[in-house]
Amino acid sequence: MSAAHSFLNVNGLPKELRHNRVLWLLAIVPVVLIAARLKPEAHTLLFVLSVLAIIPLAALLSHATESVAEKTGDAVGGLLNATLGNLTELVIATAALHAGQYCLVKGSVVGAIVTNTLFMLGACFLLGGLKYHVQEYNRAGARLYAGLLLLATIALVSPSAIAKTDLVAGAAVTQKLSLCLAVLLILGYGLGLLFSLKTHREIFAGTEHAEKSDPGWPIGIALGTLAIVTVLVALVSEIFVESVQEAAKAFGMSPAFVGFIVVALVGAAAEMAVAFSAARKDRLDLSVGIALGSATQIALFVGPVLVILSYFIGPTPMDLQFWPGAVVMVFLATLVAAFITSGGRSAWFVGALLILIYTVFALTLYVLPPRT
Amino acid sequence: MSAAHSFLNVNGLPKELRHNRVLWLLAIVPVVLIAARLKPEAHTLLFVLSVLAIIPLAALLSHATESVAEKTGDAVGGLLNATLGNLTELVIATAALHAGQYCLVKGSVVGAIVTNTLFMLGACFLLGGLKYHVQEYNRAGARLYAGLLLLATIALVSPSAIAKTDLVAGAAVTQKLSLCLAVLLILGYGLGLLFSLKTHREIFAGTEHAEKSDPGWPIGIALGTLAIVTVLVALVSEIFVESVQEAAKAFGMSPAFVGFIVVALVGAAAEMAVAFSAARKDRLDLSVGIALGSATQIALFVGPVLVILSYFIGPTPMDLQFWPGAVVMVFLATLVAAFITSGGRSAWFVGALLILIYTVFALTLYVLPPRT
Amino acid sequence: MSAAHSFLNVNGLPKELRHNRVLWLLAIVPVVLIAARLKPEAHTLLFVLSVLAIIPLAALLSHATESVAEKTGDAVGGLLNATLGNLTELVIATAALHAGQYCLVKGSVVGAIVTNTLFMLGACFLLGGLKYHVQEYNRAGARLYAGLLLLATIALVSPSAIAKTDLVAGAAVTQKLSLCLAVLLILGYGLGLLFSLKTHREIFAGTEHAEKSDPGWPIGIALGTLAIVTVLVALVSEIFVESVQEAAKAFGMSPAFVGFIVVALVGAAAEMAVAFSAARKDRLDLSVGIALGSATQIALFVGPVLVILSYFIGPTPMDLQFWPGAVVMVFLATLVAAFITSGGRSAWFVGALLILIYTVFALTLYVLPPRT
Repeated sequence: MSAAHSFLNVNGLPKELRHNRVLWLLAIVPVVLIAARLKPEAHTLLFVLSVLAIIPLAALLSHATESVAEKTGDAVGGLLNATLGNLTELVIATAALHAGQYCLVKGSVVGAIVTNTLFMLGACFLLGGLKYHVQEYNRAGARLYAGLLLLATIALVSPSAIAKTDLVAGAAVTQKLSLCLAVLLILGYGLGLLFSLKTHREIFAGTEHAEKSDPGWPIGIALGTLAIVTVLVALVSEIFVESVQEAAKAFGMSPAFVGFIVVALVGAAAEMAVAFSAARKDRLDLSVGIALGSATQIALFVGPVLVILSYFIGPTPMDLQFWPGAVVMVFLATLVAAFITSGGRSAWFVGALLILIYTVFALTLYVLPPRT
Repeated sequence: MSAAHSFLNVNGLPKELRHNRVLWLLAIVPVVLIAARLKPEAHTLLFVLSVLAIIPLAALLSHATESVAEKTGDAVGGLLNATLGNLTELVIATAALHAGQYCLVKGSVVGAIVTNTLFMLGACFLLGGLKYHVQEYNRAGARLYAGLLLLATIALVSPSAIAKTDLVAGAAVTQKLSLCLAVLLILGYGLGLLFSLKTHREIFAGTEHAEKSDPGWPIGIALGTLAIVTVLVALVSEIFVESVQEAAKAFGMSPAFVGFIVVALVGAAAEMAVAFSAARKDRLDLSVGIALGSATQIALFVGPVLVILSYFIGPTPMDLQFWPGAVVMVFLATLVAAFITSGGRSAWFVGALLILIYTVFALTLYVLPPRT
Repeated sequence: MSAAHSFLNVNGLPKELRHNRVLWLLAIVPVVLIAARLKPEAHTLLFVLSVLAIIPLAALLSHATESVAEKTGDAVGGLLNATLGNLTELVIATAALHAGQYCLVKGSVVGAIVTNTLFMLGACFLLGGLKYHVQEYNRAGARLYAGLLLLATIALVSPSAIAKTDLVAGAAVTQKLSLCLAVLLILGYGLGLLFSLKTHREIFAGTEHAEKSDPGWPIGIALGTLAIVTVLVALVSEIFVESVQEAAKAFGMSPAFVGFIVVALVGAAAEMAVAFSAARKDRLDLSVGIALGSATQIALFVGPVLVILSYFIGPTPMDLQFWPGAVVMVFLATLVAAFITSGGRSAWFVGALLILIYTVFALTLYVLPPRT
């Protein structure tokens, strides 16, 4: 179902990926698990190894999720995908949540939104544009994502707007509000699914590529892989979260940069491979669907779920209050995406522009001295 | 004239309203006036009664205004409508102005802009969308309103941008600037009328519904009703304004929430009835015209007029300086309206999205602890 | 090449300008140079004289630049134009840079962006609209400019967003970041040239007016004029920069107002003459190209070059950190331009709206008391 594809970020890993080099990186998984036990203080090494190990696991997770979703029909598949689509991000963030590293969690949520909206989308437009003079895609899908991202941005802005007028009010009231907003965002996401998959699916159907996507695995293998890989990602994420702050210091990176850029890129690695390959095949609807769909999912589903989860597994509840710079970046990224995609056409320069804007953010965060 | 309709918010109350239950609420008007004399300390009771009494009065006022406007021809009718269209809001706000409750006045102006832009428009799209699969409307009208709202937003942002850099400068300079900006906004509104009613009226003409609107009353009855009802609204408004703050405490609502949400909804009740009914009849041009036209009128006419009036009837002059959160909400509401209406098409989800965004604001204001 | 015209702001001075009254103002150039020597303390007189002297010099400079660019072919001509197009602004700003008046430099950069985007564009729409009922222009060009301005705006916002979270960090880090961002903006500008002049020039070609533009001067005369006039502008600019602050006090204007409005209008006088005349001839592509092209050039080329130049000629390096109000104005101006030009159509009211928004900014800055 191509509507499902564009909205739900069902990123069918192309056959080649399965027989290819990325999966050789799986060999690093046992290495990192053993290394973490033997040399828990080698933060930089563990950081590098865990990043390399997460990439193939993310690819497997992504493909297994999609195979399961394919078997269960649209409606259930939609929900499954909504739950599992950004599983890598969710598992990494849960590990950070458990460790009480709320700064890293928030940074990675906001970073994933900005990275997917600007970098992934921009690279798709650039790579596609270097091959094709002008490419077209379904505007309606992009508008839906932009609208949902606008809702999420406004929900992020609201508590900060309160905090400015009422710094005294403190955590309790922010907490209550964050919980309500989280429920509201999940509701918005659900309505978006209903709209694009059920009531108005014909609007979001991609035009040309009704072609079969990769058939996927049998349900048993898919479910088995899903279970095993989720456990492995959880184990490796824990090592990643423990090592990332120390490693960041060694590399001279601020924690904001790490959360925003490094974690976001690692978490989205598998999706990017699929989105880029689709752009090179002139299937820009799929690329836009993965890039903006993933940003939407994180903003309206993963983020809110983390807020709710924090009541159960975190040391204290987490709120939706972000530092003002983060809110500004999400707002600007949403605005840029809404502006750029309103035409439904792209060329290489559009991609270059998005990547330049992303670079402005990345540079700013890189230069930003670590807050101590 | 349907162009006048869409721009000037001439909300012809449908016949059914006149013979219907809403007008039974008129019986409450004497009750509230007597109760205010006998039990001036029963704030909660007076608040509830005055809200219930304002609704049918607003409906009558709205219809009388329109009947007068219809008789006077387009140009004069346009000016009359501009002056009388949001008379309920104007009378309530004048009562608050007289009482020196500038916080409530400003809250209700900003609240009316946000409520009309997000809630009224959203509910129209949602109600229409539940009946029709996709609805279309004239983009040009929506663009004009969005442009005017952008002007108003920028005029609201400017004094705050000064205040940030120069808090020492103080009230005198803000006052002078506010007065100049108020005149500028009224000028902008006048030019907008000239553009949409005279020089380029063909662009704003609704396509399909050239049908007759409800004929309205004879001019004598209309003018009489106008005079009597205005006095009644003024009397009830005074009770409303006196009781609202105490009642808010009893209900656990912050003053910001009361100004923003309760007063805005009460003031726009009659218009909403007409706009919703038009949406259910697939006359979305009229709905959009009422919702955005009303927001524009309040932002560029009612608000500025209140600033000028404050020099004559208020204890001290009122400025256009709003608390930052209010400015942010007006800005975001305008941005959302410009984005959402740029396509000229709607479906149920568009309405749901607007209402969700409105709910984010309402929630935030509800949770916001009262500033003391 | 009309694509070059619209993007590169090649403002062919119409023949009438060369034989006309403006050039009589050249007689003031020697007067101001002598007056500055004899009466260096007559600030108000020197200010008025230097403004009057810069206008004809800017017109000559503009025409000479274009004549040179025409002779050298598209690619080289593009680069030349990028370097020389806003030479007046560059020379004035360099004089201020040399004097260490960074507040004036920044004010004039931001002012030129806002003035060109709102006032010049608005006046073109208004003047054209008073003659023609509805005018059309190439949307693609306007979108390109809006996209580039968005990039520049985001680059201006970013250091401020840092400063908010980390005021302690201080100048060194802001400096480093500003330099990186300056290089990034110049890169973005270069890619924009490549896109609109080489790879996708057909998208930006104006439709109707393939007509010849004014032939221009022989290369020798053009180069000679360029050299002499640049020296004269530099000399007069020095007097202007020295007198402007004192004269501002005499006129009761804040330094922000002078930088933003007066310097911006003086610097762009010649371009405005061309843009307005084109609008009156229904050549709106050229008008939009000059107005938005000039804003883009200043934001992505002149401004960044000034930052880099400050390392060589200023007392200390200049950063890209603007006061928050300036950033807000650039952001809003960009947003308004993106919104207004998205339709590719204009009428008088669109121009009036832009000018009203500009007036809001000008009023605010005029009322803003000088920071001491």
